[in-house]
Amino acid sequence: MKTYYSPKHRLRQPKAELHDGQWVPSFESPERMDHILEALKARGLDEPLEPGGYGMDPVLAVHDADYIEFLASVWERWVAKGHQGDAVPNIWPARTLRDIRPQAIEAQLGYYALASDTTLTEGTWQAALAAKDVTLAATEAVLAGDSSAFALCRPPGHHASSSQFGGYCFLNNAVIAAQYARDHGKQRVAVLDVDFHHGNGTQEIFYRRNDVFTTSLHGDPEHAFPFFLGRADETGAGAGEGFNLNLPLPNGTTYRAWADALETALTAIEDFGAELLVVSLGVDTFENDPISLFKLTSDDFSDYGKRLGRLGLPTVFVMEGGYAVAEIGTNTVNVLAGFNAERG
Amino acid sequence: MKTYYSPKHRLRQPKAELHDGQWVPSFESPERMDHILEALKARGLDEPLEPGGYGMDPVLAVHDADYIEFLASVWERWVAKGHQGDAVPNIWPARTLRDIRPQAIEAQLGYYALASDTTLTEGTWQAALAAKDVTLAATEAVLAGDSSAFALCRPPGHHASSSQFGGYCFLNNAVIAAQYARDHGKQRVAVLDVDFHHGNGTQEIFYRRNDVFTTSLHGDPEHAFPFFLGRADETGAGAGEGFNLNLPLPNGTTYRAWADALETALTAIEDFGAELLVVSLGVDTFENDPISLFKLTSDDFSDYGKRLGRLGLPTVFVMEGGYAVAEIGTNTVNVLAGFNAERG
Repeated sequence: MKTYYSPKHRLRQPKAELHDGQWVPSFESPERMDHILEALKARGLDEPLEPGGYGMDPVLAVHDADYIEFLASVWERWVAKGHQGDAVPNIWPARTLRDIRPQAIEAQLGYYALASDTTLTEGTWQAALAAKDVTLAATEAVLAGDSSAFALCRPPGHHASSSQFGGYCFLNNAVIAAQYARDHGKQRVAVLDVDFHHGNGTQEIFYRRNDVFTTSLHGDPEHAFPFFLGRADETGAGAGEGFNLNLPLPNGTTYRAWADALETALTAIEDFGAELLVVSLGVDTFENDPISLFKLTSDDFSDYGKRLGRLGLPTVFVMEGGYAVAEIGTNTVNVLAGFNAERG
Repeated sequence: MKTYYSPKHRLRQPKAELHDGQWVPSFESPERMDHILEALKARGLDEPLEPGGYGMDPVLAVHDADYIEFLASVWERWVAKGHQGDAVPNIWPARTLRDIRPQAIEAQLGYYALASDTTLTEGTWQAALAAKDVTLAATEAVLAGDSSAFALCRPPGHHASSSQFGGYCFLNNAVIAAQYARDHGKQRVAVLDVDFHHGNGTQEIFYRRNDVFTTSLHGDPEHAFPFFLGRADETGAGAGEGFNLNLPLPNGTTYRAWADALETALTAIEDFGAELLVVSLGVDTFENDPISLFKLTSDDFSDYGKRLGRLGLPTVFVMEGGYAVAEIGTNTVNVLAGFNAERG
């Protein structure tokens, strides 16, 4: 399995993160990538490859143009206005206000945000662009005939919606991959999100479409981020009715129940007739993850990697969350090695 | 002019405020009250009186019951869940998510917030209750025949909507006063908001009513907090159409243009036939205010106090913003003394 990677992810280095009413070191850190690179090497997987550039068309195919223009210019505008800290939204078009986009950069921050856990910093945009190129390179490898590929990228993507950032995400890499596959010959594409957190952005972008099936296993949003999306009654709308499957699970879920839900998702992907699978690979389902609430062990990751392999679909793995930094490498590579063991 | 005041405002003592991407000492501080008390004494105004208790009915007349239940219980719930810092919303029902109220306290924080500049802290609820009692005592004095009274209260109120806190506000004191006057014999009540920031909560709560006229002079929301409300095209809705008058002014506005807008507002209040006036008295229009952008001098506050006095209406002054702490006393008392000079 080819792995694609770009060191440009280091350009995103948030000073801190707003968590539990305090600034804490950002859970979504560059060190996450280092541990995964080490584990890939230690386990004898292929050397990572640098991606080429894929331009903006694959991004504009799934994100709103005004949002992209905002992301590309926000840091310069923020600094030009004399601000000292990283950019954090602190007001938004709330229920009792109007849903409009004011001119002030401070207001646009809130308009384009869905959470204030995520700062906008110098270099974030460049890192996000590199992440989508990493993802597109892996997608292209699979479209060219590889049975699988791994996009080792950050910042992650699955919380980024058509027009909002948050949950450490800016561009939705998995969505960009799925759309790229649609635009390059695949008629039916599935996105499976195994991150602990619901992939709200992925769901939102494809919610009214029947050519991309989206399914997510995640912490019940009544009690877990992103809270305001990810319930079982969200099944798609319009032409997309029936093409989104949410499998929320209670906090404390262990592998047996999780694997049952995975089989439900895999069956639905087969029934859909997917020609290509994008896996939003978050490993924050791990029992020791500092901000997530499932109880998977490292061995469980190997097991579900095998199950994904047995599905037999061309598969693009796209890195999402995982914040137990010491074990992130082992858990991620366990999934890939498990997959390889089935597919060779 | 009687002044009402309760030392219980000190129960709200936020550790810090999220401003410009950093935690800074909270602009809305207990010291604000100390400076105003000193200035009242130095200028020979009446000794402040402590209010009685007015219960929850006047609050529930204007705020949603679920919001009040949230405010009353949030701190205990937050601490019970093991949180360490003050409570700050960091995700909300954004445009691309669902407008629902999840069970988790972390999500309800975002559901009931319109800005993350405002922390929920131990004692905030008790201080907010004292602020509304101070306001109701001043209102009662005017209803009993006093020509005016001053509610020296904090936390302020005018950003608090029917069901959301933010902008340092939790209960909308001015709205509670206006509704109390309506419920005690006044047929037509006007609320004039002279704080630098638009009184979005006041507008929202009375937006569909024709018995309370609301008008606000404030920084143009295209460039000033609260950004997402306060434009001139917001004139009321339904039965309330024509009963809200917004007078947004550009950053840098000096007194001449500000006073012209004030005359427009006062004429509208007279045309409405108001029987009682509530003034949301923010003095952050001052030229040296650290977070506001108008250019009024201390003498200008005396002048507009006189203009308010000449209106000849029973008047309840309710303290709102003002963050140039050294001058907040002078500027506030200048308004009251100017008013007194006209009315005796």
